[in-house]
Amino acid sequence: MVALGHDSGRERPLDRGFSGAACVVTGGLGFIGSNVVHRLAAAGARVRVVDALVPEHGGDRRNLAGIDVDVLVTDVGGPEVAEVLEGADLVFNLAGQVSHQRSMVDPEGDLFHNAVSHARFLEHLRRVAPAARVVHASTRQVYGRAMRLPVDEDHPARPVDVNGVAKLAGEHLHMVYAHAHGLPITSLRLTNVYGPRQRLTSGELGFLPVFLRAALEGGTIELFGTGEQRRDCLHVDDVVDVVLAATSPAAAGRVFNVGHPDTWALADIAALLVELTDGSVTVRTRPWPDEQQRIDIGSFETDSTAVAAALGWRAVTDLPSGLLATLAFYREHPWYLSST
Amino acid sequence: MVALGHDSGRERPLDRGFSGAACVVTGGLGFIGSNVVHRLAAAGARVRVVDALVPEHGGDRRNLAGIDVDVLVTDVGGPEVAEVLEGADLVFNLAGQVSHQRSMVDPEGDLFHNAVSHARFLEHLRRVAPAARVVHASTRQVYGRAMRLPVDEDHPARPVDVNGVAKLAGEHLHMVYAHAHGLPITSLRLTNVYGPRQRLTSGELGFLPVFLRAALEGGTIELFGTGEQRRDCLHVDDVVDVVLAATSPAAAGRVFNVGHPDTWALADIAALLVELTDGSVTVRTRPWPDEQQRIDIGSFETDSTAVAAALGWRAVTDLPSGLLATLAFYREHPWYLSST
Repeated sequence: MVALGHDSGRERPLDRGFSGAACVVTGGLGFIGSNVVHRLAAAGARVRVVDALVPEHGGDRRNLAGIDVDVLVTDVGGPEVAEVLEGADLVFNLAGQVSHQRSMVDPEGDLFHNAVSHARFLEHLRRVAPAARVVHASTRQVYGRAMRLPVDEDHPARPVDVNGVAKLAGEHLHMVYAHAHGLPITSLRLTNVYGPRQRLTSGELGFLPVFLRAALEGGTIELFGTGEQRRDCLHVDDVVDVVLAATSPAAAGRVFNVGHPDTWALADIAALLVELTDGSVTVRTRPWPDEQQRIDIGSFETDSTAVAAALGWRAVTDLPSGLLATLAFYREHPWYLSST
Repeated sequence: MVALGHDSGRERPLDRGFSGAACVVTGGLGFIGSNVVHRLAAAGARVRVVDALVPEHGGDRRNLAGIDVDVLVTDVGGPEVAEVLEGADLVFNLAGQVSHQRSMVDPEGDLFHNAVSHARFLEHLRRVAPAARVVHASTRQVYGRAMRLPVDEDHPARPVDVNGVAKLAGEHLHMVYAHAHGLPITSLRLTNVYGPRQRLTSGELGFLPVFLRAALEGGTIELFGTGEQRRDCLHVDDVVDVVLAATSPAAAGRVFNVGHPDTWALADIAALLVELTDGSVTVRTRPWPDEQQRIDIGSFETDSTAVAAALGWRAVTDLPSGLLATLAFYREHPWYLSST
C-alpha cells in the first residue's frame, strides 16, 4: 500500500508556484489549516498563522511541530489581524467553529466565530490587502437535507443547524466582498474531510473522527439507525490541492462544491475500518438519539463538476487507501488520541 | 377612487379570530410592525410591542399614536424580552435593520440586528413560549440577482449585500428553531412594500419611499440608468393580511415568497406618480452611482404560488390605487416628511 499524507513526499506540480509567496492561514493550527501550512512551507512559501486556539475548535500547536511559522493567537476578527494581512499575496481563511452540536447549545458563539468575526476579517482585508487572493472554507453542510442528488451549487441552501446557518452567512459575506468590493475571493463548500491532524477526541466533529478513534483504540463504532445514509469523504491532501488551486484568478468571486465522486454508506465505511484494522474494532447499531436525528440530513452526494471544469481539480485519494494512510499517521502520532 | 389603508374601515374575515389573543409585535413602532399592531388592536387582540427605536431603522412612537399598547424599548435579543414573550399566543417578529447601504458601511451592526439578536430572541422563545405561533419577516432580497423569473422558493439565495446576508441568516435561524426544536414558526420573504407609516426621510429604504417623498414634495424622481428594471410592489395592507394568515398551523416550519402578480418598470412607477400628482413631480434619469450599481439586482418578479396554495392569500391592492391611497395618507400626516 502507498502511504499518503503530508509525509509521503509526493510533489504536486502546482505547489512550485508558491515559493516565496507571502501567505496567511487562519485556523492554521487546526485540521485543514495545518495541512495547508505544511504544504505551503514545503513549497517554500512564507507563512503566517492566525488561530484563536478556542479549546474545542481543533487547533493545537503540535499540528505545526517542526514548522517555522509565526502564530498570532486571536480570532480572525481581532484588530492585530490587520497587521498580519498587510502585504499578503495569498490568504487562506480556514478558521471556524465546526461542531454541529455545539452550535445548537451556543448559537451566539457559533455566529460569532463563523460570521461576525469574518465580517471584521473582511473589513481588514478590504483595507490592507484588497488584492490578496483569498480562499475561504465553507461546507456542504450549508445545503442541509438534499432535495436531489448529486447536489450542485444551484441546489437551495437550507441549513438544518446553527453551524450551517453561520457558515453560510460567513460564505455569503465573502461573496459580497468579492462582488461589491472587488476582492478576489473564492469559497469552497467542502464535504466530509478526514486525514492527519484532525481532532479525534471530540464527539462533535462528524462521524469520521469518531469512527477513526474507535478503530485506533479497538473500540466500538456505533451506527445510528441502519447506517445506510451515504457520504462522499475527502482526504485532506485532496482538500489541500483544491485550496491551493483555488488561488487561481479563474476562481475569483465563485463558490464551488468540493466532494469525492465515490459515495459510501456509513455502515460500509465502518465495515471497511473493521477490515483495515484486522477486526480489532467492532460495529453495533443503535437507535437514533433524538438530538442527532433532528439535525441529520440523510444521504449526500456532491456534484463537483464546476470546480473540475474551472480548476482541473478532482479528488485522487480513494477511501480505502486514504483511511489506511490516516490510521498509519495516527499510530505514529498517538497524542491525537489523548488530546483534550 | 377608493381610499385604502388602515383607516378605510374594511374588515377582513380572518381578523375576527384575533380577538383576545396575546400578541407580541417586534419592530412594532416601525413600518410593517405598526400596521400589524393597528390591525391587531382593531381586531381586539392584546398587543405588546418590542422596538429598539434605533434612530435609522424606521421606528417612531407616532406610528402607534392613539393605540393603547405596552412598548418595551430594546432590541429583540434583550433579556427583558423573555418576560414580554411569556404567555404569548402569537409572535410577530418584524424587527430588523433594513438599509442595504448602511449594511455595507456597518456590516457588524447589520449582523447584530438581523441575526445575532434574533438568535437570542429564539432562545427566549424556546424557553418561555415554545408553543406560540411565530411569523418572521424575511425579504426577497435574500435571492440577490435572479437567475430566472419569476423567483420561487427553490431559487438559489445569493444575497448581494450584507443586509441580505444577515436577513437570510436570521431567516435560517428561525427555520432551525422550527425544525430542530419544533417551534411553530413561519418566515415570509417580502417583496418591496409601500404604504402608510413608512419612513420617507431616509434615502436608504429602497426606491419606493424615495419616489413617494419626491411626489409629495413636488420634487424630482431620479431614475438610475433607464429605469427599465422591474419590481413587484406590495401595499402594506396586503402584507398585514399575509402576516396574520401565516399564523395558521398550515404554515409552520415553512418559508414563503410574498409578492404581487403585477410587475412594473421603475420608469413606469415614476410616470404613474407624475400622473397621480397631476404633474407636480418631475422625473429625470442619471447614470448609475457606482455603489448602487454594485448591489443592484436587475429585475425581480416573485412567484407567490406556494403561499397562495397554503394560505389562500393573494395581493388584492393594485399599484395605482395603492399609491393613491398612500399619497392621501401622507398628505394627512405630513410629519412623515420631516421626521429624522
